[in-house]
Amino acid sequence: MNLSPEFSLIHHYFNTLTAERDDVVVGIGDDCAVLYTPANTLTAVSIDTLVQGTHFFADVDPYRLGIKALAVNLSDLAAMGAEPAWFTLALTLTEINDKWLKQFSAGLAEIAKQHRIQLVGGDTTRGPLSITIQVHGHLQAENMLRRNAAKPADLICVTGCLGDAAAALQYKLGQLDKSALSDTDIEYLLQRLEMPTPRNQIGQQLAGQAHAAIDISDGLLADLTHILNASNKGAKLDLSALPFSAVLQKLPLELATQLALTGGDDYELCFTATADKVAGLKQQFPNLIHVIGEITDDTGIYYQGEQGHWKPFLNIRAGYDHFSK
Amino acid sequence: MNLSPEFSLIHHYFNTLTAERDDVVVGIGDDCAVLYTPANTLTAVSIDTLVQGTHFFADVDPYRLGIKALAVNLSDLAAMGAEPAWFTLALTLTEINDKWLKQFSAGLAEIAKQHRIQLVGGDTTRGPLSITIQVHGHLQAENMLRRNAAKPADLICVTGCLGDAAAALQYKLGQLDKSALSDTDIEYLLQRLEMPTPRNQIGQQLAGQAHAAIDISDGLLADLTHILNASNKGAKLDLSALPFSAVLQKLPLELATQLALTGGDDYELCFTATADKVAGLKQQFPNLIHVIGEITDDTGIYYQGEQGHWKPFLNIRAGYDHFSK
Repeated sequence: MNLSPEFSLIHHYFNTLTAERDDVVVGIGDDCAVLYTPANTLTAVSIDTLVQGTHFFADVDPYRLGIKALAVNLSDLAAMGAEPAWFTLALTLTEINDKWLKQFSAGLAEIAKQHRIQLVGGDTTRGPLSITIQVHGHLQAENMLRRNAAKPADLICVTGCLGDAAAALQYKLGQLDKSALSDTDIEYLLQRLEMPTPRNQIGQQLAGQAHAAIDISDGLLADLTHILNASNKGAKLDLSALPFSAVLQKLPLELATQLALTGGDDYELCFTATADKVAGLKQQFPNLIHVIGEITDDTGIYYQGEQGHWKPFLNIRAGYDHFSK
Repeated sequence: MNLSPEFSLIHHYFNTLTAERDDVVVGIGDDCAVLYTPANTLTAVSIDTLVQGTHFFADVDPYRLGIKALAVNLSDLAAMGAEPAWFTLALTLTEINDKWLKQFSAGLAEIAKQHRIQLVGGDTTRGPLSITIQVHGHLQAENMLRRNAAKPADLICVTGCLGDAAAALQYKLGQLDKSALSDTDIEYLLQRLEMPTPRNQIGQQLAGQAHAAIDISDGLLADLTHILNASNKGAKLDLSALPFSAVLQKLPLELATQLALTGGDDYELCFTATADKVAGLKQQFPNLIHVIGEITDDTGIYYQGEQGHWKPFLNIRAGYDHFSK
């Protein structure tokens, strides 16, 4: 990385993030960071960009944005079964705004500390606001969670609950009928959109137990489809088992279902595992793991329609309005 | 990484970049790439963003932009003495432009193949055009080139020639008196700005021979200052030894000197080494390694003024116009 004078200025906002892993040989301040990987350990890496106007609103709280920018990347490590280690930050800013930078870096530091992940390098440039983070995690080969490893009769599970972030997005766009919701409910939904909880603890425990895993960033149907396509399998879903938060349960069931199936930004995990492994995981993480279906040998995603027949989802992007009925 | 439908669309532009290193356990198409690092080998990483309007002009040839986007990152690996291995690409695009993407990816593929570096992951988002690349290289601990390792009496060397990219930038901004230059000369300068040559072959040979190194992205004085500050040393420069291209020699000496000292974007290496190591390196890389000064125990950067006295540079950013005379 090239430390421009701008970066030196900005660096002090992020210095609380630069402590202190033994495996960082050279951190911020040289042409490259230099990192030590233990023997028999693989490195998992993922890079994601958040662009203002595409991934977040201009009025988003910068503290929350700092949390989200790292959370969406940590979520990829969780879905791979990797242990967070290091990250880099490429930050493009329209201007050096002291207040914004203090709050953004405080959010970033908060979540980085929670996950023991260290900032090792970065680049700061001038331009329209965007944040690119690359995370690096440690992984043992035998614990790797691939998308292509789903097996027939695996149970399909999700963590947490689904649809909250999509409801918050509808609210922000003025498209949500919020008559049934309190201010506290709205704030809960906004927090789920703006500060998602990456499931790294669960992801690391899945390693060696689950077959396939992915994180839900584009919506359950879209992300489950990635598993099914990579594994050349299909799925039957029990829509009545979709996990909704107490707030989402205040919305009409059909809307909640659509948000859960097609809404993005949940950053929960979707994974497949044998029934006995799922039983153990449910005990280990009470109320956090929900069985929503089963892997099938036939391809396609099916749900039980009005007469109890299995019906295919015809358009995994369009969602509930376009169900085959 | 999350492969959005957009990315699937774009992925095929970059598939020529995804072949084929044995140390890539999982490449593009899962939540993370998974990478194997040999025992006793460190990983050097660097991330850099190029933003339209800040780092390149809107009318830049996309093939050249593809080359530059990776070149500036490879240059950081060169300055660390690391061997290129893998890279990730976070691409933010205003639209999916088939012609642009074909040309950009062709340039990227061209330089990636030259350096045997493999694309292992990415993210594609919608927004104002910017390109963030992170490179990963292999490095033996004993070969690491730090900025903080300059020793008194080390010779200060640069590779290639300096100032061409800055001259091209002046030309693009309409600020260059080009009366002495032919169209071929202008094209040469533009190529130096738009398709810099990262010095990875030299960088890897410096490992174990040079003391300190940096790549010249912000201008010789600014980047040399990073070495001097990190090493707590100073420098005496012989301005008559600055290496200029045949084209730059057609410009007034004072202008060429200023461009070489303060112009960015050269992506040559600046390194320090003992005189006997430099002699060997000059034999190994004929005409590519130029001695331009010497490391001193006193801090500050000095040059020989009109009466032969050593004068300090008062403002390393402002350059020649603001020399202490």
